[in-house]
Amino acid sequence: MTAAVDGVWAAALTPMKDDLSVDMAALVAHQHWLLANGCDGLGVLGTTGEANSLSVAERRRIIEATAEAGHPAERIIVGTGCCALPDTLELTGAALAAGYPSVLVLPPFYYKGVSEDGLFAAYAELAQRVGDARLRIYVYDFPAMTGLEMPPALIERLHRAYPETIVGMKDSSGRWDDMAEVMRRIPGFRLYAGTEEFLLAALRAGGAGCISATVNVTSRLAGELYAAHESDRADALQARLTEVRKMVSGHGGIPALKQLVADQRGAGWLNIRPPLVRLSAEKARALREDFGGHGMTLADAA
Amino acid sequence: MTAAVDGVWAAALTPMKDDLSVDMAALVAHQHWLLANGCDGLGVLGTTGEANSLSVAERRRIIEATAEAGHPAERIIVGTGCCALPDTLELTGAALAAGYPSVLVLPPFYYKGVSEDGLFAAYAELAQRVGDARLRIYVYDFPAMTGLEMPPALIERLHRAYPETIVGMKDSSGRWDDMAEVMRRIPGFRLYAGTEEFLLAALRAGGAGCISATVNVTSRLAGELYAAHESDRADALQARLTEVRKMVSGHGGIPALKQLVADQRGAGWLNIRPPLVRLSAEKARALREDFGGHGMTLADAA
Repeated sequence: MTAAVDGVWAAALTPMKDDLSVDMAALVAHQHWLLANGCDGLGVLGTTGEANSLSVAERRRIIEATAEAGHPAERIIVGTGCCALPDTLELTGAALAAGYPSVLVLPPFYYKGVSEDGLFAAYAELAQRVGDARLRIYVYDFPAMTGLEMPPALIERLHRAYPETIVGMKDSSGRWDDMAEVMRRIPGFRLYAGTEEFLLAALRAGGAGCISATVNVTSRLAGELYAAHESDRADALQARLTEVRKMVSGHGGIPALKQLVADQRGAGWLNIRPPLVRLSAEKARALREDFGGHGMTLADAA
Repeated sequence: MTAAVDGVWAAALTPMKDDLSVDMAALVAHQHWLLANGCDGLGVLGTTGEANSLSVAERRRIIEATAEAGHPAERIIVGTGCCALPDTLELTGAALAAGYPSVLVLPPFYYKGVSEDGLFAAYAELAQRVGDARLRIYVYDFPAMTGLEMPPALIERLHRAYPETIVGMKDSSGRWDDMAEVMRRIPGFRLYAGTEEFLLAALRAGGAGCISATVNVTSRLAGELYAAHESDRADALQARLTEVRKMVSGHGGIPALKQLVADQRGAGWLNIRPPLVRLSAEKARALREDFGGHGMTLADAA
């Protein structure tokens, strides 16, 4: 079985054309750039990739394009979690068919205030209905977007019920205590922190690394830290990476990342689907200055 | 142009078979029952109908089955709002093709903390890309599920930009002050309150009525109030309707409604998709007793 590798993963951006269709050539080029500039793997079709603004058919085409680009199974995790179980099943099947058994699965996120039994059932239905021994599910916990809580006890329950299938998670809760508790409860669990702020801490606690939005523009620095994470330089590199991550985050989310890439590769990268909107010229200028002021160059973002 | 009628609308439940596929025969039978028992119209594929747990293909089939059942355009509003604009476009096109120009549209609800400009853009893209003069968009404001705020100023901005197309809303915010403000700002706006608690208040303020989950089991009482809403009995009937609505809501949402219908029509009605789960036997018993204790009979729910 091909497991997803440890290290630095970018939740890859999805470039779009002026009509807001996916720019597949730019998408594949960005994937290659990230893997050549510090990333060990790519989260394709995550929050940062605007996956939830894409139809199932569009997501299938991105999965296929990723496979055609030749990226190996151990370097790709595909986001397949939708509100509707049939959609999650279809995308998970498409990922497996493309040779990507590792999938990152949001809980069904429309209904709020649902029970832990209901969240458990959602993942159990997926694991059972796919019925493919290759499948590796990473639970995607992102309460700020889903409005749902996935406490460590639920993660453990899921893993115990499907130990060969539910093998890891991306924890975007921002709560280090929860991440540490999951790793204590489940030795060997493939936990990726949702931010590179916790890259070193996750590795030291036995986790797999990070999958992060801002790695689209911090990948070289993050890769440098990962390469040196057992050295004396590790803490200083983490401090610098954390500072840069916080600076970028402070300028907004996906629109800020697309702005930084656009500064290097062209204005097409500013295209973004509603409800997200591009940065104003004023905000773009402030971001650019702050990025440079932190010793980052545009070449770090393209 | 066929406008959606005033009055009492149920956000119709979606019955499912044991394998969780849609039970189309039971769905159509329930539609007919509601329209014969106090409902003026049906919200098809809303929150209560578990629309967000259904694939686009499943939703298309429900739209087609609704049309084949012969329900007239002025008595059907179809939920078509998805996270992804292409899905919203496809379902809106399917509703128009089936003869249903009135659609209830959630904002794209995955991303949180988005700007009013972004929410405006989402509806503007829909209105422009459909480009069909028959289209009538009802904005669906349900912050408890979407995590998004749609203040009256945004509703007014949308209506002013697309006065022939964005003609109304379903307000499930529970905030009467917001509903009253929308009706003051936009005379003639087709506002349906998201709960029958505000049926009389909405009608008196110039609104269109209500579209509500609990109307699945309160339709006879709600219909009685609507028929008498200009009479001396109106306030007393509203008080009783509000009491019953609050009682049912207190027992949970969609699972409680499916339980009450199942008590009358059979256990198949308990089937529900994750992340929702059916009531426990104990909770079902408490609901049943409370429903009867409030002078409601099972025949009110089937």
